[in-house]
Amino acid sequence: MVASLKKNPPHQVVIVGGGFGGLYAAKALAQANVNVTLIDKRNFHLFQPLLYQVATGMLSPADISAPLRSILSKSKNTKVLLGEVKDIDPTTQQVILGDRVVPYDTLIVATGAKHSYFGKDSWKDFAPGLKTVEDAIEIRRRIFSAFEAAEKETDPEKRRALLTFVVVGGGPTGVELAGAIAELAYKTLKEDFRDIDTSETRILLLQGGDRVLPALAPELSQAAAASLEKLGVIIQTNTRVTNIDNDIVTLKQNDQFKEIASKTILWAAGVQASPMGKVLAERTGVECDRSGRVIVEPDLSIKGHNNIFVVGDLAHFSHQNGKPLPGVAPVAKQEGEYVAALVKQRLRGKTLPEFKYTDYGNLAMIGRNLAVVDLGLVKLQGFIAWLFWLFIHIYFLIEFNQKLLVMIQWAWNYVTRKRGARLITGKESLALAQVENTNGKSQYTTANNRQTVNA
Amino acid sequence: MVASLKKNPPHQVVIVGGGFGGLYAAKALAQANVNVTLIDKRNFHLFQPLLYQVATGMLSPADISAPLRSILSKSKNTKVLLGEVKDIDPTTQQVILGDRVVPYDTLIVATGAKHSYFGKDSWKDFAPGLKTVEDAIEIRRRIFSAFEAAEKETDPEKRRALLTFVVVGGGPTGVELAGAIAELAYKTLKEDFRDIDTSETRILLLQGGDRVLPALAPELSQAAAASLEKLGVIIQTNTRVTNIDNDIVTLKQNDQFKEIASKTILWAAGVQASPMGKVLAERTGVECDRSGRVIVEPDLSIKGHNNIFVVGDLAHFSHQNGKPLPGVAPVAKQEGEYVAALVKQRLRGKTLPEFKYTDYGNLAMIGRNLAVVDLGLVKLQGFIAWLFWLFIHIYFLIEFNQKLLVMIQWAWNYVTRKRGARLITGKESLALAQVENTNGKSQYTTANNRQTVNA
Repeated sequence: MVASLKKNPPHQVVIVGGGFGGLYAAKALAQANVNVTLIDKRNFHLFQPLLYQVATGMLSPADISAPLRSILSKSKNTKVLLGEVKDIDPTTQQVILGDRVVPYDTLIVATGAKHSYFGKDSWKDFAPGLKTVEDAIEIRRRIFSAFEAAEKETDPEKRRALLTFVVVGGGPTGVELAGAIAELAYKTLKEDFRDIDTSETRILLLQGGDRVLPALAPELSQAAAASLEKLGVIIQTNTRVTNIDNDIVTLKQNDQFKEIASKTILWAAGVQASPMGKVLAERTGVECDRSGRVIVEPDLSIKGHNNIFVVGDLAHFSHQNGKPLPGVAPVAKQEGEYVAALVKQRLRGKTLPEFKYTDYGNLAMIGRNLAVVDLGLVKLQGFIAWLFWLFIHIYFLIEFNQKLLVMIQWAWNYVTRKRGARLITGKESLALAQVENTNGKSQYTTANNRQTVNA
Repeated sequence: MVASLKKNPPHQVVIVGGGFGGLYAAKALAQANVNVTLIDKRNFHLFQPLLYQVATGMLSPADISAPLRSILSKSKNTKVLLGEVKDIDPTTQQVILGDRVVPYDTLIVATGAKHSYFGKDSWKDFAPGLKTVEDAIEIRRRIFSAFEAAEKETDPEKRRALLTFVVVGGGPTGVELAGAIAELAYKTLKEDFRDIDTSETRILLLQGGDRVLPALAPELSQAAAASLEKLGVIIQTNTRVTNIDNDIVTLKQNDQFKEIASKTILWAAGVQASPMGKVLAERTGVECDRSGRVIVEPDLSIKGHNNIFVVGDLAHFSHQNGKPLPGVAPVAKQEGEYVAALVKQRLRGKTLPEFKYTDYGNLAMIGRNLAVVDLGLVKLQGFIAWLFWLFIHIYFLIEFNQKLLVMIQWAWNYVTRKRGARLITGKESLALAQVENTNGKSQYTTANNRQTVNA
């Protein structure tokens, strides 16, 4: 049953992906008598739960990222390899990169998830999602460019579209984005413009179901909605997006269609497993669910290949209560640690009972002093929940050396209500000017080269 | 003589450029009975003297930037306009943007300088310079990608080229970049790689003249050179670059030509005035010098147009000792403040004596504990100079609210020798893979789309 347990040369563990699942597996194997290779496309681990704060100008990307090499520099049995895995060969036990192959005895796949536009890929350009540092910088560029363009716009209708922000999806990311944009518009930027009144900004949060934060208890959804509305966010539940075009979102509410003109549409709705799920299915015959997640065994391995594990957002684990575990950081972390522990047990000729997720609760930040926390028996809201949220996030950041900086930045922003990281950067970041294009719709162009950008 | 001094409606001051010159002029006019419009292509002021720390992964862009609107939000007479000035009409007293015109009574042009490749514009792609946030992120990407590619490279010659960094230009930026890369290679990254020894890195600093930091006293140049060499930087003086091609720098030393294979070539040599100099010359007949800087009158106005001023790197001011003032932040700051004071005096029907620059000294940072400071009578080097450098820079950052953060980040890096902002980001930042192209030279391509990038 137990996979080839070489001790000399040491057992080779290959981990694909340096997110929470992969990184915690690597850390847990640091002292083990194995060789670990951690492969990632990026040279840094990203603390994704705070990415929305980068997108809204509160933090810098480096504040919530840490170089993988730096995190693992003391793990002398661990090698970090920057590269993208293209394929896997379970017969020869190799992962295949563009320019090399890496042999494994145990393989841990933790490549996560990306956005899903439910097959409507054309929406992507008009409504970016928030998964990577580049996504966050692009969203930041769009948000702040919209205010800049509004300041210059004289047509009231166009100005209204520029000051309308639509967030699609009422899960934690959508709630946090909408809350942060509201604070930005109604507090931070209030004094900064001369020709517009940023309090005229409209922020719409669209949710398909009947309440925001459906993973939390109903009373907390209600508390979150009340807090968001107090901040100025307009929540539209039971609302489905049927189309997104340049500057126009089409909604369906109670069988009525409705169009909203908005220059800044943000996508916080569906996710989809990364392509590695498909590769695993093809090479091992393992089944995937509708969103492409790999259906794993009770020990997180895949059927017929007990030396291949899938952890984190890519894994569909439903052995606990029939429902798959949610795609959140604590699940990925515990799964990564479990697999590492199992590998160590196997090296001793032992095994472990099946994986069991310990749910410590759910939480979401809404704004300054406002959060909701659902710990099962204990439910918190308002300021106390906000403090709890802060504490938890700082606690988890500790391990990445970013704690001090982030804490100070938060404290600073809290006192001053300022957002220092409001940079409009990137290729299309030069002066935005609005021009009329041939079909009469207004678009942004960069002033220097008139190249159309999706802003 | 004195230009149209409207008091009702208020005198319109238009400032083009939000660097040190333009921003200090705007700040000095905050309480005056004038309307100020500050026009910039970017929505933030950049503290350029610390840009090399972004390029080497020490600080984040937002740490050394501040939103112009936020800096000027309390100046109720001041409007910030995001846009690019294309032209100026001195007859109708208007500046012309892509999508609008802005009338002025007094115009202050402070659009600064950009790199100059001495007419060899093809060098630009192979040897980026350091002027913008995007430049810094690109250089950061190249530096850290070179180490990543070296870790994967098995050919010793190619590995050597990947671990060879060439900095062209021995002024403050070149010295600071070379010193920072040396610290990175020999200290910060020492433990982070498994297949390369980063202490094999070669850092070459090329200087056309016979010493680095020629603006400082010769004994400080000598001290700086000694410190750099102790850090591991190879200084080559009396060295002219005759060609830069993909991965190859050709040098001329004592009539001998020499080729150096390097994957990371950085440009810290010539600068050139921004295009606004040419516009001013065409529209007003004012003379420019060889590098395109506008030759200004003793009061920083331009000949025949006493309501148009040029300040900062775009200005050629040589009324003090025959030599033009250098393109450094203190000159720009003092010039901006002088023009603001002159405008205020003119509103009272008075004037000011001609501009006089007060030179408080020159300084350059070399590395941890190492700097050189030339205050004329007082010359400092080593640790005490480094403390002085730190103090001065923090002092000037105070006004931009970034002091605390930068100080803590420095302190943190100082204690840990870590660099947290080592992110490889941007369009071409996915896994770098090395491939052979048709002519046998190796190039980087991004693994996912095989698009060649200049890395």
